[in-house]
Amino acid sequence: MANPTLLILAGDGIGPEVMGQVTRIIDWFGVKRDLTFDVEHDLVGGCAYDKHGTPLHDDTMARALEVDAVLLGAVGGPKYDNLDFSVKPERGLLRLRKEMDLFSNLRPAQCFDALADFSSLKKHLIAGLDIMIVRELTSGVYFGEPRGIFEEGNERVGINTQRYTESEIDRVARSAFELARRRGNKVCSMEKANVMESGILWREVVQKVHDEDYPDVELSHMYADNGAMQLVRAPKQFDVIVTDNLFGDILSDCAAMLTGSLGMLPSASLGAPNADGRPKALYEPVHGSAPDIAGQGKANPIACILSFAMALRYSFDQGEEAARLEAAIEKVLADGARTADLMGEEGGTPISTSEMGDAILAAL
Amino acid sequence: MANPTLLILAGDGIGPEVMGQVTRIIDWFGVKRDLTFDVEHDLVGGCAYDKHGTPLHDDTMARALEVDAVLLGAVGGPKYDNLDFSVKPERGLLRLRKEMDLFSNLRPAQCFDALADFSSLKKHLIAGLDIMIVRELTSGVYFGEPRGIFEEGNERVGINTQRYTESEIDRVARSAFELARRRGNKVCSMEKANVMESGILWREVVQKVHDEDYPDVELSHMYADNGAMQLVRAPKQFDVIVTDNLFGDILSDCAAMLTGSLGMLPSASLGAPNADGRPKALYEPVHGSAPDIAGQGKANPIACILSFAMALRYSFDQGEEAARLEAAIEKVLADGARTADLMGEEGGTPISTSEMGDAILAAL
Ligand SMILES: CC(C)[C@H](C(=O)O)[C@@H](O)C(=O)O
Ligand SMILES: CC(C)[C@H](C(=O)O)[C@@H](O)C(=O)O
Repeated sequence: MANPTLLILAGDGIGPEVMGQVTRIIDWFGVKRDLTFDVEHDLVGGCAYDKHGTPLHDDTMARALEVDAVLLGAVGGPKYDNLDFSVKPERGLLRLRKEMDLFSNLRPAQCFDALADFSSLKKHLIAGLDIMIVRELTSGVYFGEPRGIFEEGNERVGINTQRYTESEIDRVARSAFELARRRGNKVCSMEKANVMESGILWREVVQKVHDEDYPDVELSHMYADNGAMQLVRAPKQFDVIVTDNLFGDILSDCAAMLTGSLGMLPSASLGAPNADGRPKALYEPVHGSAPDIAGQGKANPIACILSFAMALRYSFDQGEEAARLEAAIEKVLADGARTADLMGEEGGTPISTSEMGDAILAAL
Repeated sequence: MANPTLLILAGDGIGPEVMGQVTRIIDWFGVKRDLTFDVEHDLVGGCAYDKHGTPLHDDTMARALEVDAVLLGAVGGPKYDNLDFSVKPERGLLRLRKEMDLFSNLRPAQCFDALADFSSLKKHLIAGLDIMIVRELTSGVYFGEPRGIFEEGNERVGINTQRYTESEIDRVARSAFELARRRGNKVCSMEKANVMESGILWREVVQKVHDEDYPDVELSHMYADNGAMQLVRAPKQFDVIVTDNLFGDILSDCAAMLTGSLGMLPSASLGAPNADGRPKALYEPVHGSAPDIAGQGKANPIACILSFAMALRYSFDQGEEAARLEAAIEKVLADGARTADLMGEEGGTPISTSEMGDAILAAL
């Protein structure tokens, strides 16, 4: 059987550095666990713009649709701030999401025991936290038409359109209920049905999917503003949260920051299954390109490595190997290995990106 | 000279209870400080629907446009959950905001010394917190057209429209810069200019207003998802935050919850100045109608009383009297007066809504 294929798009800023450690881990799985991937590398974001004048070349897009999974580092940086909207680094990422039809974005907000002190929240509120946010990723105000800046009378008006069809809501709701069944069996759906008709439809469809096909899962609904409050007040009340693209962007970042260690959080963006049963899939850390520390060997590679662990689990049905990798990471953290972002008030000497890679390989 | 006029719309749930204490305070200012208001009472929200079949009667709307300030309690409750969207309690509130053209919603997120332990955040991150969120309140996705649930092919689609004109952004930006000058002189503007064209226009206009008329104020821009993270990570970095209607809804609730005492937070919604120089204005607590504790005398009236203090300051140019009222509240808290929502882990016996009113009157 042919090896599974991976397309690595390391991107900008700290992307290449953290991805460098991921490729070492991938190699380890080939040598030690007989799990060999055919790996290709290409460009996305600002570096793609620099070379091709577009943040995602058509050939890269085509290849992303063919491989078994895409691993992405991060995109963006101050150098590209004044580019036209249509060629900004982010457009490369958004095009991948849209054309791969990656409608279900899984963002775990998990608190690692060894790092519970890093949270800005009091320890008892956050220790043991394990939430999964399922964010709709291919629709809503991110992609709705009409959009743009238009002349109107003698001034300009900026317009975007929030837009959800029943089937778009249906499929992401299903992915949330499926996930919940393998976790705490609880889903909380968030919208602003008190203000937005798109939220009314959202709530109705989520409820219908529940009642028809997932009556065993506990379902609640919450307004998104209250959701933000409840995340800050008592995050452990949640198991799976399902929400739309824009609310998901904000609420998942809020939840991520609750854990206090953004450098630790991976994400998976999944589409419909292919003929071979594998979903179209892109894996990326939740953190951004961190241009302020790029190129200094300071970045924490764990979020990116955990994204590869999600790939093992969701694309390659290798849950045990994923758990092996996650356990190795727990171990190095318990042993006190810390990149600069994980240095607490006690101080100490941070290790570098590649030293963290070394430590994880050693633990494996 | 005629007395200034106040329209009190106590609304639903705990609204009438907390407003009951506000009227006692208003009476005190009449008797003791020679500051007499002509007070009228009317209905909004579910109680208005019960009586008139609409959450805001046209006569109430007309009166709101005539008086010097409106004080609102809270709207909504489970009894009204299944009402049609067009007559839900919230529509009454949204109609007031829109027809009074209250474009600038001031939401302080302040941490009271005596209550710093209530926050879910670690004390050093929150003690002394004093942020002002300026939320645009009359436009954006709350009011943009087209909106609704439509048939499309053989399914339904939910649509809302995010929409901002230059002048809408201009005026709320000005109000934020004006406020900043009387505070820490710093404004952070939040949007998603990396994804939404309405955000690009937002950023551009805020920058232009700054450069032309408020170059002395320190201005920064932040993506709203990062804003949510930064609020959780290090809220004291902010002075004034200015943002749109929907981001403002979520971010201000997130910020409010950081303080840990939602029952403490007031808000002011201001429009353009009338001929007499007073802005059209509505004051309301940030908390909702809390149906679970309504009618039990448990609710904390402080947020609503502090909303009246904001009225004294912003509508009636009585900053000193506002400060007097705020100081009385600080004092009763320092003395240990606590309604049920302010009970910490140490326990103790909570006082009732009216006992809190008694204590504040005594301190005055
Ligand atoms: C980079 C940006 C386009 C993106 C988004 O808004 O979705 C990011 O914030 C994210 O959450 O992945
Ligand atoms: C009640 C609701 C319509 C309202 C809003 O979404 O604006 C509330 O959440 C608020 O923030 O005042």
